[in-house]
Amino acid sequence: MKTGQNLYEKAKKIIPGGNMLLSKRPEMFLPKHWPSYYSKAKGCQVWDLDGNKYVDMSIMGIGTNTLGYGQAEVDKAVYNTIKKGNLSTFNCPEEVYLAEELIEMNPWGDMVKFARTGGEANAIAIRIARAASGKDGVAICGYHGWHDWYLSTNLNNDQDNLSSHLLPGLDTNGVPKSLKNTAFPFNYNNLEELESIVKKNEIGVIKMEVVRNYGPENNFLQKIRKLATNNGIVLIFDECTSGFRETYGGISKKFNVYPDIIIFGKTIGNGYALNAIVGRKEIMSAAQNTFISSTFWTERIGPSAALKTLEIMKKIESWELITSIGKKFQLNLKEIAQKHNIKINLSGIPSLTTYSFSSRNTLKYKTYITQEMLKNGFLASTHFYSCIKHTDKFLTKYFNVLDSIFYTINKCEKDELNIDKLLDGPVCHSGFKRLN
Amino acid sequence: MKTGQNLYEKAKKIIPGGNMLLSKRPEMFLPKHWPSYYSKAKGCQVWDLDGNKYVDMSIMGIGTNTLGYGQAEVDKAVYNTIKKGNLSTFNCPEEVYLAEELIEMNPWGDMVKFARTGGEANAIAIRIARAASGKDGVAICGYHGWHDWYLSTNLNNDQDNLSSHLLPGLDTNGVPKSLKNTAFPFNYNNLEELESIVKKNEIGVIKMEVVRNYGPENNFLQKIRKLATNNGIVLIFDECTSGFRETYGGISKKFNVYPDIIIFGKTIGNGYALNAIVGRKEIMSAAQNTFISSTFWTERIGPSAALKTLEIMKKIESWELITSIGKKFQLNLKEIAQKHNIKINLSGIPSLTTYSFSSRNTLKYKTYITQEMLKNGFLASTHFYSCIKHTDKFLTKYFNVLDSIFYTINKCEKDELNIDKLLDGPVCHSGFKRLN
Repeated sequence: MKTGQNLYEKAKKIIPGGNMLLSKRPEMFLPKHWPSYYSKAKGCQVWDLDGNKYVDMSIMGIGTNTLGYGQAEVDKAVYNTIKKGNLSTFNCPEEVYLAEELIEMNPWGDMVKFARTGGEANAIAIRIARAASGKDGVAICGYHGWHDWYLSTNLNNDQDNLSSHLLPGLDTNGVPKSLKNTAFPFNYNNLEELESIVKKNEIGVIKMEVVRNYGPENNFLQKIRKLATNNGIVLIFDECTSGFRETYGGISKKFNVYPDIIIFGKTIGNGYALNAIVGRKEIMSAAQNTFISSTFWTERIGPSAALKTLEIMKKIESWELITSIGKKFQLNLKEIAQKHNIKINLSGIPSLTTYSFSSRNTLKYKTYITQEMLKNGFLASTHFYSCIKHTDKFLTKYFNVLDSIFYTINKCEKDELNIDKLLDGPVCHSGFKRLN
Repeated sequence: MKTGQNLYEKAKKIIPGGNMLLSKRPEMFLPKHWPSYYSKAKGCQVWDLDGNKYVDMSIMGIGTNTLGYGQAEVDKAVYNTIKKGNLSTFNCPEEVYLAEELIEMNPWGDMVKFARTGGEANAIAIRIARAASGKDGVAICGYHGWHDWYLSTNLNNDQDNLSSHLLPGLDTNGVPKSLKNTAFPFNYNNLEELESIVKKNEIGVIKMEVVRNYGPENNFLQKIRKLATNNGIVLIFDECTSGFRETYGGISKKFNVYPDIIIFGKTIGNGYALNAIVGRKEIMSAAQNTFISSTFWTERIGPSAALKTLEIMKKIESWELITSIGKKFQLNLKEIAQKHNIKINLSGIPSLTTYSFSSRNTLKYKTYITQEMLKNGFLASTHFYSCIKHTDKFLTKYFNVLDSIFYTINKCEKDELNIDKLLDGPVCHSGFKRLN
């Protein structure tokens, strides 16, 4: 057994769930065989604890590093911040500069709050929106973190309400039962459902991801904007994942629809922790009638890294680059699937591509891809989150390997080979599972 | 007007509340005249945006930097982390090493979760404890952050329930009203009150600060431990503030009382964002029946900084050093107050000293101290959070200046001088106030 796998066995005993993020659990990729830990990450390459190097053609830090790992200028900005001191009794001026940049980026917005994780940024936005609207009811669409306000959706009835938004199999123990009927899920592109929720409940807030696996149809976003405005509802776009992937800012820019609050995260600091909540003054001012305050929101690395990341993104138009790379990936994938007569379901914007197989063996094939790619020096799954460092050289090599993997998958589909015999270990998890 | 003050005027227009932490608002120190922002911080010294240098004899980053600002070895560990990459699709091994160190430090504990802010660490602990006990009711004593579960205390009735725990004047708009009667405050050293809360309500969790402005009396902590055990209640000690100030770990160690969960924060990363939740396996395992997960909890700076900070703290026994400095400060303060016949109320453990004046002018005197100290190159208020860099040289100079300030305050108390005429600007805020 290798060093990382040994360490993970230890981790599972002393860390509930084994790590800090479900999506980075080894079981989500390749149980027993995933290297699990890194010693170094640079560009789109990652080194495990035994010094093996891999090209990351999977989730790229769950989409945090669109400029690649260890971007030199961002790292230098952070290094200079460390030299000057990361915290003091005074505040860091970078938080004001960053707020100014975000307001310039979002001319409909006037005020900004910062946090250090997406979950708390979402909780801040909800607190402010509830305070501004005076109503506790929230209609939600998409994934918005681990906090009580969101998971309480699953208390409403016996259904697994979040299963289409979050993850199947998820228990929400420890969420106060009195929060029942405060959060209501609606399905993307289903305006009638949302209208019905607004009619039946005291809804003060609509929070949604702007684009999920597919885009808006029939002016869905425009109609939601109108519904919110007409009913005094605060509209929040959670762009933690979609931000800076198709525009300099939210993907909502593309649709000319503007929320009352927008949330950015993940890629805004290119791998350094920062989240931003940008909103209209009338709404954001409600923060002054409640208490939202945290010691480590004053640390300086986050805003320093974000300022430099934004500068670089703007200069090179990184959202164009990662979209173009994502499109290339999708095209190659479609071609290779067609060549081997394999049916795949492709979804997601180009820079956040996801696919599955139209087969009862889809999870086994995913596991097989990860297993074989790893042997060939790639981190891979059925997600591909592009960064600017995914050059043609890496893509070409990747698809050469995938070609032979798809050849085998086709054989399995035709029952000429048995996928179970090709797997060196257990099948990957698809959602939340208790670890032993 | 100076650069920092100008920048803060701008900040108030684009950031609700002007900054990210209430305790670092310029109005909490010296409205209109506080430098507000830093360019550099090193040791116990801070430079403002105009290059003026001050000795920080106030809150030292709200108690984050007991080893001083910019501690060279910690900074070097962080710098090496940056060089190796702060994030990747793999996890960072440092989180496992840090978990091991925390379990060794707390032999009663078995498992660890990490977060990046104290508010979310508290919310994680509450989620796990509620999930483990199966009951939503929480009894609280002390300050535990900005989240709904805590602020909901103020929904219980018309009283300002948190005013003795948090801050007077605080509104809690935006907290779901259905959380009413889920959190119940009890006063420190009042066991009967807590017993009555436990008798009348379905309490699953007791969360408290171990030492507030004074210590436990009449075996208060032992009795709470017993009460919790007998009633199947999960006992949480929030040591975000008190940790590593009197022992290598929680201050609870001193009293030989062990909780089911302990929370560390602030000083554990010496100015880099990290919080840790350490607990017994039976309790912490409940995290596997709920969803607690966040992208930026996987970043590497936090655990790297904490590992190095703990190593240094252990080596130099920093808690002894800061306690000894705090004691010196308290002694000097008492002497100088006595000399000038000024009545002060001293509270807090030595390394977190706080005082006030037995006078209706106490806030004005506090403002005057800050104002005069600033002119003499000191950041000061009526709090002194010691760090290992507060050497005798600084203390001697500080008390020389304070001597003349107390001389003046005595004149004011005797009505020989008018404090209002001595202040160059408005009186500092004592709690939460809406900013214009």
